Formats: sequence, C-alpha cells, structure tokens
Amino acid sequence: MNGAESLLRTLAGAGIEVCFANPGTTELKLVGALDAVPQMRAVLGLFEGVVTGAADGYARMAGKPAATVLHLGPGLGHGLSNLHNARRANSPIVNIVGDHPTHHKSYDPPLESDIETVARSLRGPVRRPENAAGVSQDAISTLADALEPPGQIATLIMPADVSWSDGVVADGNGNQPSVVARPTPAVKPAVIERIAEVLRGGEEAALVIGGPAGRAAGLCAASRIAAATGARVFLELYSSRVEHGAGLPSFPHLGFYPDQVLHQLDGVRHVIVAGTPAPMAFFAYPDKPICLVPDGAQTHVLAEVGQDTTGALTALADLVASGREPEPIGPSRSAMPAGPLTVETWPAVISAVLPEDAIVVDETISSGTGLHAATAGAPRHDVLQACGGAMGDGMPLAVGAAIAAPHRPVIAFEADGCAIYTLSALWTQARERLNITNVILNNRSYATLREEWQHLGTDASDPHTNTLLDLGNPDIDFVGLARAFGVPGSRATTAEELADQLNRAISEPGPHLIEAVIPPIA
Amino acid sequence: MNGAESLLRTLAGAGIEVCFANPGTTELKLVGALDAVPQMRAVLGLFEGVVTGAADGYARMAGKPAATVLHLGPGLGHGLSNLHNARRANSPIVNIVGDHPTHHKSYDPPLESDIETVARSLRGPVRRPENAAGVSQDAISTLADALEPPGQIATLIMPADVSWSDGVVADGNGNQPSVVARPTPAVKPAVIERIAEVLRGGEEAALVIGGPAGRAAGLCAASRIAAATGARVFLELYSSRVEHGAGLPSFPHLGFYPDQVLHQLDGVRHVIVAGTPAPMAFFAYPDKPICLVPDGAQTHVLAEVGQDTTGALTALADLVASGREPEPIGPSRSAMPAGPLTVETWPAVISAVLPEDAIVVDETISSGTGLHAATAGAPRHDVLQACGGAMGDGMPLAVGAAIAAPHRPVIAFEADGCAIYTLSALWTQARERLNITNVILNNRSYATLREEWQHLGTDASDPHTNTLLDLGNPDIDFVGLARAFGVPGSRATTAEELADQLNRAISEPGPHLIEAVIPPIA
Repeated sequence: MNGAESLLRTLAGAGIEVCFANPGTTELKLVGALDAVPQMRAVLGLFEGVVTGAADGYARMAGKPAATVLHLGPGLGHGLSNLHNARRANSPIVNIVGDHPTHHKSYDPPLESDIETVARSLRGPVRRPENAAGVSQDAISTLADALEPPGQIATLIMPADVSWSDGVVADGNGNQPSVVARPTPAVKPAVIERIAEVLRGGEEAALVIGGPAGRAAGLCAASRIAAATGARVFLELYSSRVEHGAGLPSFPHLGFYPDQVLHQLDGVRHVIVAGTPAPMAFFAYPDKPICLVPDGAQTHVLAEVGQDTTGALTALADLVASGREPEPIGPSRSAMPAGPLTVETWPAVISAVLPEDAIVVDETISSGTGLHAATAGAPRHDVLQACGGAMGDGMPLAVGAAIAAPHRPVIAFEADGCAIYTLSALWTQARERLNITNVILNNRSYATLREEWQHLGTDASDPHTNTLLDLGNPDIDFVGLARAFGVPGSRATTAEELADQLNRAISEPGPHLIEAVIPPIA
Repeated sequence: MNGAESLLRTLAGAGIEVCFANPGTTELKLVGALDAVPQMRAVLGLFEGVVTGAADGYARMAGKPAATVLHLGPGLGHGLSNLHNARRANSPIVNIVGDHPTHHKSYDPPLESDIETVARSLRGPVRRPENAAGVSQDAISTLADALEPPGQIATLIMPADVSWSDGVVADGNGNQPSVVARPTPAVKPAVIERIAEVLRGGEEAALVIGGPAGRAAGLCAASRIAAATGARVFLELYSSRVEHGAGLPSFPHLGFYPDQVLHQLDGVRHVIVAGTPAPMAFFAYPDKPICLVPDGAQTHVLAEVGQDTTGALTALADLVASGREPEPIGPSRSAMPAGPLTVETWPAVISAVLPEDAIVVDETISSGTGLHAATAGAPRHDVLQACGGAMGDGMPLAVGAAIAAPHRPVIAFEADGCAIYTLSALWTQARERLNITNVILNNRSYATLREEWQHLGTDASDPHTNTLLDLGNPDIDFVGLARAFGVPGSRATTAEELADQLNRAISEPGPHLIEAVIPPIA
C-alpha cells in the first residue's frame, strides 16, 4: 500500500468516516486511496471553502473530526476563511493539504507556496511526514492534535512523493497506532466555590455561557442557577451548537453592537463567563468601549475555553441551586403571520412550521435577529452559527451537518451576501442528495454594512447609499442559481408562500432552495 | 480628511485609478472614501478571489497597479489563490487589507486573524501604518514596493482606527508624496556577449522566453535570433501576457508534461532562458525528471526574472542577427469546421471568428491545448493565462482586463472546473457592463486530473473513473448560472452554434456566456 492509503487506512482505523475533498494532481494518490478505503466516505466540493465549512459542520454534529483534502497553498487559501470559523467553533478537523515532493519544491515550480506559514496562521499544529513509513504515526498524531480540547485545526501536509511511495499502517514500533483523546480538563473546585460565594452575595450578576454549554446539560445548569440566584443568563454572540426549542431553557445571545450588550448587562456587578471570553465588541467603533463588562463590575471566569464548561456549570448549580429544577420553555409556536415577508415576519413563519428534530444553520446576520426568540417554543432543534464571523459558512456547514445526521432535516438560513461566497455547496448538496432546505434571505444589499454606517458615525464623506453596499444591479436570481446546480428552487414573497414552500421542501427528500424576498434596509 | 481618504487620495494622486473591493465593517471608511475620491473607480466583487484576480488582469493590461480592498484575514484567505497567480505573473498590486484597531486586536475578537503571516506567504512586503498621519507615506511606499521590478504584491494593512482618524496627504516632511519606480535592471553586456558566442558556435540551441518577452518587441527579437541561428524558440508554459496573431512571430508554449518538454528540447545542447526559470516539471511524477533541460545540455540565463528581458533579447538579436528581420505569421484563419464541438474543433471556430484586437483569457487547461496554434494567424490579440496554475483565475482576469481596456472585446475561455471557483465574477461583469464573452468548455469532469492518472502510473487502487473527478451528477447548467447573475447565456454543441453565438455576443455590448459542450475525456 502507498503512503496515501496508509494515511486513510490509519484514519479510518481510528474512526474517521468522512473526507471532504477538492483534490488536484498532488492529491491524486489520495483520491485513489479513497476508492480503496470504502470505510471513508469521500465528498467532493467544487471550492475549498465548501470543503472546510462542511468539515466544521460535520464535527459539530458528529462530535468527531472529518478529514479534508486540499490542493497546495492556493487550495488552503480558499479554505482558510471557513477554517477560521471552524477554529472559533473549536471544531476538530484533520486538515490534509497536498504538496509537491520535496525534491520538486526546491525548483520553486509555479504552484509552489508556503503552506506551513499559511496553515500556522490557524494556530494549530502543522505536520509534514518525511517519508511514507512515517505517515501512519503522523496521521495519528494529527488526529490527536485535532482532538486536543477544546478541538483544533490540525494540518497534515502530504507531499506527493510521500503519497505515492510504499507505506504501512503502523507506528514506529510496528503497531497499529491508536489515538486516545486527552480528557477535557476540569475546573478546580475552589474556582467554582468562589463563584458560588459571589452569587450567594446577592449582587446583580450575569452569566455568559459558550461552547459546549449551549447543549442541554449546560442550558439546564444555567437555568437552575438563574432560578435560584436571579442571575441573567446569556449565550455568547455566535455559538457553535445550541440546543433550542420546547422543553429546554432558552437564553438570549449577547448582542452584536456594544450598546446592545451594555444594555443587556446594565446594572450588573458581576459578569461570570463559562466557555467563552468576557463580553467584548465584535467590531470597534470610535468612542465605544471594546470591553463590554460594565464599569465597576467584576469579571469571574468559571471555565476557560477548553475546560469542562458543562461540568463546572453543573457543579455551580449544585452549590447555589440545590434542589432547583431547570425552567424549560413550553411548546408554543408563533401565530402564522400573513402578507409580505419582512425581517419581523419571516422568523414567525419558521416558528410556525419548524419540523421536529431539525438542524438549523443560522447565517442570517442582520436579517435574522428575531429568529432565536421566535423559535424558543418550537420543536426542539440544534442551531449552528459561523463562530468566527467570516461570511460564507452557512451552506457548507449544512452539508457537513446533513452528512453527520442524515435522518434530520437541515434548514440553512442564509443572508444573500453570505450565500454567494460558497454557492457551489448547492452542487454538493445535490450530488449527495442531502436533506437540506436553504432559505436565502434576499434583501439585495450588504444590509449589515448599511447598519454599520450608523454605528461608525457619519461625516460628509459617508454617503448613506454607497454602491459598494448594494447587491442589486443586477438582482441575483437565487432560484436560478439553485436550479443550475441541480437543486429545486422556489421564491417566496409572502408568509404564506414561505410556509407552503418550506413544508414542501422539508417533506421531499434531497436539497431545496427557497429565495425569501425581504425589503432592503432603508 | 480621515486616514482612509488620505490613503485613496495619495494613491489617486500617484496615478492609481481603480480599486477592486469586497469590504466589511473594518473597511467601511475606505468605502466612504471611495465615494469622496471620484478619480478612483470602485468595482465591487462578491468574493475576494474575483477582486484579486481582477487586480491581476488590470495590471497586465493597464501596465500599472490597481488597489484591492479585502476584509481581514478571512478575506485575504479567499483572495490568496489569485494573489498567488498574480505573484507568478509579476503583476504589481497594492493589496489593501482592513484590520481591527490595535486596541481591539489585543482582546482576540472573533474575527482576529494573523494577516501579516498570511500576506507574507506571498513574498511581498507588508506594511501597517501606526497612525493616520503615516498613511500617505506608507501608501506611497507600498505603491513603490508593488512597482519594484518585475512587479509584486505589496500589502498595506489598514487598521480601522487608522482609517477613521484624521490624516493628511503628505509624507513625513509635509510634502505631497510621489513615487518613482526603479527602472528594470539591465542585463550586463558581457552576459549577452557570452550567449551570442554560444549561438555562433552552431550547436543546437533552444531559447525559452517569458514575462515581458511575450510582447511584440520580445517576440520579434526572438524571431530574428531564430532566423539567424536556427534556435528553437518556446514561450514559457503559462504567460502573463502574450501578443499573438497575424503580423507577429508565434512560438509554441513549453508543454505541461515532462515528456512533452523533453520531446520539444530533444537534441538541444544549449537551453537559453530569458525572463523565466529553466524548464522544469509543473507537477512531479514517479520516475520522471523535474529539471527538463536535456541530459548533457547547458543552461544559459540571458535574463533573470525581473531583469530587462526584452532589452537583453534585442541586444542579443543585434549581435547574432544583425540585418535579419523577424518572421511574422501571415493572416490565416482556420477553415470553419462543421458538426459537433470537440477538443479539436472548438479552437478552429475561434480562429475563424476571433475579432480584431481581442483580449483572450485562456484558462482552458486540458481542453485548450489546440488554441494557441489555431489562432496564430487570426487577427492580432493579447492572451492572458493563470501563471501560478491555481484554478479560478480566468473570469476575474477578464474583469480586470475589460476595465483596463474598455474598448477591446474580451473573450475568456474557461474549463468548467475552473469557472466554478469564481462564478460571481459574472455578477461584476454584469454590474459594470463589461464587454466580456465567457466561453465555458464544459466536459463535465476534472479532465486534467483524469489525464494525470495516466501520468502518475496506475495500480490496483487507481480506478479510472473515480467519482471525485466527475463533475456531472448533477450536470452544472452554466447558462442558468449566467442568467441568474444577470449575464445573457446560450449553449453551443456544434461548431456552427459556437460561431453564431460568439459573433452575436461580441457584437452586443456587455457580458455574455456561452456554454460550449465538449465530450468528456474517456
């Protein structure tokens, strides 16, 4: 067997089941090996941002890494933005990048690029096996790196000659290598006890939870703490995975704008953070603070990112809320609205029709601020967001989520500007017959940037309607784009149309796209 | 005026006329400044690979840099692949990347990324003004860096607070800064004389020319040398800009595969290179050489990349071919073929109908090997290729070329796999009403990778038809994609249809797309 097959067999032996790929010539032996290792499902993306975003979505729903295959530095570059989002989601990814053979690189051929440097910008480890005999051990080490709590992007650069040379599935001692993930480090009891003291003190407190605390156990612990102490609970701004809907406690996300967050935290004397940094501005503005902990309030770190956040929250609840039950939201769908779709009405439609057990991908930016509250009493579902704030993650996340959870309906809500970056995700959805309904919120502008004008302050050089923020002229026909990639499409301009089209899309197998036309922000 | 306006006014004052942009919040003051500086044309791309590829195409045809505006590290990542191609084309680009303010970065906000590290992978200088007063000087220094022969990607990172703070258009001494490009270094006469001696020796020689030698003056000098000495002349594999067609000498490109190049150079005792590295393999294969200079042949460097290649060629011609005239190709179009389009017939159609003074973008990969020879006697035109070999450059290059040369017809020939990476270039073409005809050679596969299977050698694990090389299932409807982005589209399956549709597309203003269906490689 060659080095490429040794790599994939080792990963498959360690439980890795999916490889998202956009290969080139230097990765052809990996393509061949994917055929030879049927335990590993190969999924083709036509753009590397689809590949890396899908690996992120897969990791969030499967709870384990997928592998990628990217073509040299340019392929890694195309994939970098969604690897950034994956890093912020703490998603484990085995990121395989092909390279020229070492004896070729020294000639500086046209496609030569500095893969190591670009990969290191993701802050994860980067390995490069020197020969095919070392591939298996490097594969296992890369997988172990990816699984290092809280999860990271571990890159393995595979030179083409290492792929085509003879390899083995064994570590340096001839044993089939295996990986044992390091357990998530626990928070010291003294830290939890000290924060319990703060809460018992009775001063106004806020609890901001992130990372794994978005799952049911973390939400329930936070709910108990809130019930017992009156602490206000918030989710971080963008969450990797939040369990949401009837039967679970629901908390608002921290706001996008500094003033929103300062309002949410107004009067608080203590800000307790668990699995997320202290509240900060997403973007900076002149004369606005970056740190959004109110003046005079103290910050307390219950759990650092990468520590056992859910365990710490549960232990804290046991200290301050012994015997208290969490307070879940009861089932309650919004009344079905009528008439034209607006930023206000579309989330109510979703609340009214959301199916059981859905996976909701939320890349709605400015158009989706009402979605979270509207769906709190809808049937239970998971919500995935682009944690790093880089646009173009939504439809790829949906690809990965649908492959990890093939029997659940996936609904990806996409701002129009975001959807364009990774359009060819639709083709992968069609090819793999994934049960994804893509809903494009089309306001024909970079609406979030129009809002930002106001927050940056206006001066004579800041027109309100700069053409660079206008996505009309020409209007983009998302229904046409979907059909061209093999995905059935339809257009909704009213609440009734959106509901009908959603119901139909979800009831039919395979992907669909609905273009939901909403008014542009004035 | 703020720092953003100071940046754009300084660049405009130094002659920069176009800014290709995909901005985000951190670049909003640059967006405002683009409205305030009407001398600078702002062109919106919906994906950063369109922005950077367009800047490359513009530089090649305008002979001077455009500016880009990219959003933080993720935006730079998306733009990296076509910046790689631009670097290999030695295209000067003023690459502006917005960033968080310094006081914000220290909080590690969600969109924080290591822009410097990623930008440095492009091997060009990276600057970051510390305050708005220094922006003007940094802008000029960045422009001077970009113009450093042979041209490079010079990056200017603009923190948002530097953009919004008060700035001036002046250098450190209060003067309006200006830039004087360093002249291209000349080749020493002794080097040229020594190579003239080699040629006078009468042994078989090949002359491989690249970079600026693809323009008329370089081609004519090479033609004189060939006429006088019998040297075989070749263009480098992928050229940034070749002047081609009736009235000019025409030389074949070096081949893509090692065996092709070794055949082209068979029997040669001397390989003289001018403005390009010595012949080498584009990709490596087991048991094939990387260096493609034949055994026993000597390599002679007439001009390094970045030296005055055309001057050196002309001086060499004056030494060895005094009084000899260049030998141009006479006007001769191919006979118009009939019947189904194939890899063999479509280039003949182009030869038959190519209009006067066209700009041809060639990203045809495996489908376009016949185009160069077929168009040698067609009306004179320029040819641009993706010099770095990274896919997805063609339609963006066409955008930049059309903006640099608005009165010339631009025809972009695109392999289907390549076109998908930067599809939204079509939207920019529609918005700017650019005279571009996009011809998609649709063989519904990564055909070049199928060819590579053979070259890598087959074994039991290498199936001939791996699904990862198949772009059908579902078939992509490029006509539908074009229309959805506001570009009229049509489909051609015969030579006659392609000719008719090309003639119509070229005669109508604005962009068009023709999907030319050709058989997949078996």
